[in-house]
Parts: sequence; structure tokens; C-alpha cells
Amino acid sequence: MLQGHQTWVFKSKPTIISSAAIGGPFEAQGNLADDFDLLHGDIWLGQDSYEQAEKKFLEQACETAIKKAGLKKEDIQFFLSGDLINQIMPSSFTARTLAVPYLGIYGACSSSMEGLSLASLIIDTGFAQNALVGTSSHNAASEKQYRYPTEYGAQKPPTAQWTVTGAGAAVVALQGQGPRVVASTIGRVIDMGLSDPFNMGAAMAPAAVDTIEAHFRDLNISPSHYDLIATGDLGRVGHRIAGDLLTVLGGFGLYDDLIKFSGAGASVPISSFGNQLVKGALQEAEKTGLVGVLTGIFKITSAGISSAIIFGFLASVLCKPKG
Amino acid sequence: MLQGHQTWVFKSKPTIISSAAIGGPFEAQGNLADDFDLLHGDIWLGQDSYEQAEKKFLEQACETAIKKAGLKKEDIQFFLSGDLINQIMPSSFTARTLAVPYLGIYGACSSSMEGLSLASLIIDTGFAQNALVGTSSHNAASEKQYRYPTEYGAQKPPTAQWTVTGAGAAVVALQGQGPRVVASTIGRVIDMGLSDPFNMGAAMAPAAVDTIEAHFRDLNISPSHYDLIATGDLGRVGHRIAGDLLTVLGGFGLYDDLIKFSGAGASVPISSFGNQLVKGALQEAEKTGLVGVLTGIFKITSAGISSAIIFGFLASVLCKPKG
Repeated sequence: MLQGHQTWVFKSKPTIISSAAIGGPFEAQGNLADDFDLLHGDIWLGQDSYEQAEKKFLEQACETAIKKAGLKKEDIQFFLSGDLINQIMPSSFTARTLAVPYLGIYGACSSSMEGLSLASLIIDTGFAQNALVGTSSHNAASEKQYRYPTEYGAQKPPTAQWTVTGAGAAVVALQGQGPRVVASTIGRVIDMGLSDPFNMGAAMAPAAVDTIEAHFRDLNISPSHYDLIATGDLGRVGHRIAGDLLTVLGGFGLYDDLIKFSGAGASVPISSFGNQLVKGALQEAEKTGLVGVLTGIFKITSAGISSAIIFGFLASVLCKPKG
Repeated sequence: MLQGHQTWVFKSKPTIISSAAIGGPFEAQGNLADDFDLLHGDIWLGQDSYEQAEKKFLEQACETAIKKAGLKKEDIQFFLSGDLINQIMPSSFTARTLAVPYLGIYGACSSSMEGLSLASLIIDTGFAQNALVGTSSHNAASEKQYRYPTEYGAQKPPTAQWTVTGAGAAVVALQGQGPRVVASTIGRVIDMGLSDPFNMGAAMAPAAVDTIEAHFRDLNISPSHYDLIATGDLGRVGHRIAGDLLTVLGGFGLYDDLIKFSGAGASVPISSFGNQLVKGALQEAEKTGLVGVLTGIFKITSAGISSAIIFGFLASVLCKPKG
């Protein structure tokens, strides 16, 4: 059901019955290392190109998520996936491997949440019993595409962020154990004129804030409704911008808890973010009988991840044509 | 509702209340020229790059479709769009111009039908009252990206197809006059190992056939159920392949009417295809009280375009990494 202008409320609260994250060597050194299902020491994964390696990451994430859900690939009804490579190559080739009906999406860093939103919609309305959602990125492939090939050894500004090398996948279903998707607010493209391809967080922050505001407006709730409001990889600069914007818009102090999650700060990488939420939710549920992530309206029987909260668009700013 | 393995049946039969197509100078010389709302003599549209020109095309298509629907851009609830440019730039920038909630998609040549399918799902299930769907391509931008920059003047093989310079858009709504979307079959990636970037039709044909077969299987109907089965731009070679495959699979003669539409043959370009269907449907409806496109299960009150029929994936074959 549509509530307000841009928020979908899912009556049946579809369940994320499994998730998986595969990472590279840099991710293995981070403070989220324990949350990956598999970490590779070789960014090539034995492939001939970074793009082919990224496809491997995504295939492994999908395979793992399907296995953890106790399913086989033939059981998957629809596959929704997107990534940062031209023609979302890793997603399309993974769709070939899976050989199931496929919907390609492109939301740059918001692809993971766009996929979860659409999958939840499909499940909630009875248009499928399950769906697999995937996303991937590869640091070296992204650097080549958006900035400079890593082989150049170009100097980076202090605002530069690091695109993750890895992939994430989740199975969404009508029934089962796991965090539940309660609502989703679809974001707009917000372009504040930032054109620095290194500073992705600053480019994304206004969109994140716009979507968070819309979420509360549409559902007629306040930030206190949630224990935690998490966004994707805004980085240090973007985090501060988001905080400032929310303070101006929402009144000082309302958003104090913004972007603090499991000790990871704002630098949760794109591919493990969803997985991290799922794991966090499950751990909290085991400990306290209540879900720590986005609780409030969400009880243990209806715990949820609102994709709303992390839905913001990067594409418009990051990828300006050179003209 | 999901019927069979991969077909969505829309109870409320969402209506395509308006559509628009904008074309370039090559399109102005084709036999579909009359079906465009606007034709430009300049492939640059006064912009500095082909990519920026493509964005202009898409913006104009969206603007025209919204106007023809009697709406304003603020009335559009969701915008679903995809194109062939990296990071679906034209779509993302058009989303910025429209400033409405946006879902980026990527299905290469099937993007238009992927958008219509998802928009129909959103409308049918009450998650929106209306949605705008868009897609675009630019011949020179596509040549640069997938083959050789046109400035090189490279020789083309006889199997080469021509990517359209133009954009299409449609408004889908719960109520109103126009063709209605009855069902949609979501295709799979079918890769027969074709890696010639010029011969797109041959790459797409097996996917088109797979989806057509699935459509009939899922709905338990036969080809005679439809007056016409139309696919997107398979080209002369792809058309023959599709015909051969269907003959082998479906029995000789069953698919005689495949890919004949309004005298355009199989070369209906990506951007005007949807518009062409809408126009054809409306014209037939005026003439006979029955809809000529995909009638059978579709009466005038529930005439429909099954996106199934034209849902096939190009990306997997067209865009193999060079490794």
C-alpha cells in the first residue's frame, strides 16, 4: 500500500530469510571482517579482468545466500540485481548462471535497497513466494570507471572514499525466520551540484536526508520511533553533511543516533551493509527478544528493515558527462 | 498474481493512458516517422555530447507523455527508467529534472518492457495511482560504447543493426483510456554464445523465443490466442532465427504471424516500439471496436500489451568483457 507520497507499506512484512557477503583482501582487514561469509586474498579471483572477478564475487554471494536459505537455484523465482559496471555486467552474467527470471536494476549505491524494495513488493503482493536480491562492486573496476585506474597510482584527496571489493545477496520470502521488511520509501535524485567523483558521501548525503525526511513525513512518525537510523557509505564528510542537514531540518538533537551501527560508523561498505543489518537484527533478537535495528514499530514478530532509510541516489552526481 | 513460473497477471489491468516518442534525423526518414511526436534534425540537439543529447530526448519524451496524459510532473508518483549509457545517465538526469521518486532499471533493449512490467505491478497492487516509464538510446553514443565511434567511419557487416536515436515514455495508471496491461512474463538471460556486437538480433532471438514459450506455458494458451505477436528489434537475421526456433519448438505454422506489425516488420526501433503498440491499439479500437494488438484474451475494455512477448535480454551477450 502506498502511504503518503513515496512510501510503500508491506502488509505481509516479507522476511529476509538469508543473506551473504563475500569480500576482498582490503575488507578482510576491516572491522567488519567477521561479518563476511568468505574473504578472498586475491582481487582477481583468478580471473582475467576486475569485471570478471566482480562477477565471481556476485555469483558466490548468490550461491551462498541460496544455500543458507536451504534452497536450490531452481527454487529462486526472480532475481533482482544491479552493480556499478557498464551494462550491469556482473549482474547480467550472474543471471545467466542462475538461469531464472531476471530484473536488472541500477541505483548505484542504492541498488541493494532498490532491489530489496522491489523484491519485498513482489513478495508482499503475492507475485512471487521468494526472490533473490544481489549487488556487487569491485574497487579496481570502479576506480577505472569513475576515477583513475589503480595502476596509475594517482594521489587521492582526503575526501576520497573506497569502493568495496565484494558482493552481497539476500533471499526475500513470504515465510521464514529473519528480519522483516515493513516499509520502503523510494528516494528522489537530489543534486546539490557536487561533481567531485572522489567525495561520494557528500554527493549522497542530501538524497539520504531527503529520503529520511520523506519517510517520517509519509508514515507520520518521528526519529524516536527507531532505535537506529542507518545509511549506506556516506563517509566522514557525507556523514557530517547529513547530520548538519538533519539538524537544520529536523531540530537539534533529533537525529543524534544517525549512522551509528555495530561500531562500524558510517563507513559500512555497500555490499555488506544489508548483511550487517540482517546479522545485527538476528543477534539482537537472540539476546533481548527485541530487534535492535529499526525497532519501534517493529516487534520481534515483525522486525523490519526500512529500505527507506538508506535509499539515496548517487548516480546523478557521480557520473556527470564530461560534455 | 503469479501464474506458472514467471508470469504476472494483473487483476486491475493497468492502463497506458499516454505515450510519447521523440526521434532523430534517421528516424524521420523511416516508415514510422508519423508515429513520433517530435523529430529532430540534429543528433546533438544543441548539446555538447551525444549523451547529453540523449538525456534531452528522454526529457522531451517524458514531458510529452505527461502532457498528453493531462498531468503535471508533480502528479507523477514514480518514475521508472533505463537506457544504454553507463550508469543509465540519461535516466538519472531526467529523474533529477522530474524530481519524483525514481527507480533505475537496466534491461538493455528490454528496459522499456521491464519498466512497463514493474509500473504495472506497482499500479495493479495499489502501490501507486500512476507511474511514468521511460527509455532512450542514441545511435552515436551506442556505437561509441558498444562498437566503434561513428567518427571512425568503420565498415559494418551486413548483420549490423542500427540503434535508434530517440526516446520513449508512457504513463501507466489505474484509470483512463488506452491499452491495458493484462500480463507480463519476466524473461531469463539466454546466452547461445553469440559475441558479435553488431548482430544484436541474433543474440536476442533465443531469449525472445524462451520468453514467448514461457508466456504460453504459464498462461496455458496457444499462439492463436493472439492476433499478433510482436518483439523488439530482432533485425532480419534475428527474426529468422526466432522464427526457426519457434517452428522447431512450437510446431510448423503456429507462429506465422510473428513479428509483423503495422507494416514495420521486425525493425521497429526500441524507443518507438511501445508507442507504436499503443497507437496501433488505439487506432484499431477506433476502427473495429476490438483491439488489433494482442487481442484474444483482451477485449476493448481490457485490451492489453503483454510485455512478456517482447521481454528478452541483450546485455549478457552484447557486453562480454574483453578479458
